[in-house]
Amino acid sequence: MPSPSGPDAASPLAIVCGAGDFPLAVAEAVVASGRPVFLIGIKGSASPDIARFPHVWSGLGRAGYMLKRVREAGAKEITLVGAVPRPSLSLDFLPDLRFLQALLRVAGRGDDHMLSFVASELAREGLTVRGVHEIAPGLMLPAGTLGRHSPLPEAMAAAKLGFEVLTALSPYDIGQAAVVAERRVIAIEAAEGTDLMLARVAELRASGRLKAPREKSVLVKAAKRGQDLRLDTPAIGSRTVERVRAAGLAGIAIAAGEVMTPDTGALLSAADEAGLFVLGVELR
Amino acid sequence: MPSPSGPDAASPLAIVCGAGDFPLAVAEAVVASGRPVFLIGIKGSASPDIARFPHVWSGLGRAGYMLKRVREAGAKEITLVGAVPRPSLSLDFLPDLRFLQALLRVAGRGDDHMLSFVASELAREGLTVRGVHEIAPGLMLPAGTLGRHSPLPEAMAAAKLGFEVLTALSPYDIGQAAVVAERRVIAIEAAEGTDLMLARVAELRASGRLKAPREKSVLVKAAKRGQDLRLDTPAIGSRTVERVRAAGLAGIAIAAGEVMTPDTGALLSAADEAGLFVLGVELR
Repeated sequence: MPSPSGPDAASPLAIVCGAGDFPLAVAEAVVASGRPVFLIGIKGSASPDIARFPHVWSGLGRAGYMLKRVREAGAKEITLVGAVPRPSLSLDFLPDLRFLQALLRVAGRGDDHMLSFVASELAREGLTVRGVHEIAPGLMLPAGTLGRHSPLPEAMAAAKLGFEVLTALSPYDIGQAAVVAERRVIAIEAAEGTDLMLARVAELRASGRLKAPREKSVLVKAAKRGQDLRLDTPAIGSRTVERVRAAGLAGIAIAAGEVMTPDTGALLSAADEAGLFVLGVELR
Repeated sequence: MPSPSGPDAASPLAIVCGAGDFPLAVAEAVVASGRPVFLIGIKGSASPDIARFPHVWSGLGRAGYMLKRVREAGAKEITLVGAVPRPSLSLDFLPDLRFLQALLRVAGRGDDHMLSFVASELAREGLTVRGVHEIAPGLMLPAGTLGRHSPLPEAMAAAKLGFEVLTALSPYDIGQAAVVAERRVIAIEAAEGTDLMLARVAELRASGRLKAPREKSVLVKAAKRGQDLRLDTPAIGSRTVERVRAAGLAGIAIAAGEVMTPDTGALLSAADEAGLFVLGVELR
């Protein structure tokens, strides 16, 4: 078993698990590094497969309960992986009172505000928030042409424009993804998420409203500039490849070191097979 | 009959008509001012009702033919109203050779580039391009609370954030509309157009992913900053009101003097009835 390093590496890493396979991939990577994990599955979001690891289930708003169990498990570090629904003050949220009071201070603001709030609340409880890039760096996509296919210069120019647009939007707490075809911005992700944005581009293709050549059309994806990577790691996977293909794009340009994938091998073989490039671009 | 003014006001105004009722509203307003019109209906786009006015029909790419007929009609000024499909080099476009060569120089760029190109080509032929704001200023929505309903301060703050986002996007030849709820940007219009963006927000509402209160949620609409208003006038109408209501928004904030409507009375009574505000904000 490899020996973990760092002051808190012997204590379990607490992982708050939202939807999808990404929390499981992170847990597996951490366990493979020789460190124990303790998973907190958000009810209604996390995969039942978290039961493969030491875990508890919790409502999204039960901050007090989560913290109690994390302390009991002896964890001093915590990470948050996977999408959770934005909290609202509905019955299925059921926040405890302290969390509710704090939530009201940030209600209605963008995701960054919500996440900074969560991090500061956790730090106040003596926990250190760690990012996927710190605890499982092997899951972050690096720079370079990552698969078998290479982008045309026109696709690289489209990606450059896309990253500029994302940068321009970062002050407004949006801008994790966009689609650019030649020199035209086709779609910008806001609250709908990357999947729905790609579905929209597929519809524009199907209706004949988007006629730019496939080989000059790209998805760009990055963390928001200035975003704390510990709190909201952008992610892509094999399903993203399928949606990019359906949208009639030539490939995916990601900001190197900012975007995770649960299984790089699976991502790249899906991309290779679909004829798509996956390009990591150094932005920071 | 009121007397028209200006050096070319006695000659007919040529109106290139794309889709929708907006070209007809412009033609009516110009005729009401005492000036004759000559309409060029784009085949496959313009309403058959343009036959109420002196007119011809033309394929989108038949620039030579359009110019010949405009000259024969004695027009020295021309305006472009209503959406047309983005040209592509497909059979239904059928451009003439000169236009084709020029088009190839701007292919794939944003709308502004395409439109600047059209204007410069027309100017080269001795025609003056006029905007709706010049020839039918009564169709442009002014500043102020225009209907019966007033926005809450929170809705005005959301609108302010929305206009900031549109301004940030203008360098990229996008950003005519956005939806903001409280302090969160929900949707940004790119190639899909305002109607599809509003449909997306309605879906986010229906699926429970957008929970912000209606009274703090707004549509903002403006010309792109630095956009030549003569070439692409943003427009709203009664159908926009219906889509804004369906998206669960409290109202519409437009940049004063930049957004046209074919029938202000119809727009505002639809908004009054739907309980929506229509607010004109001075931006320039």
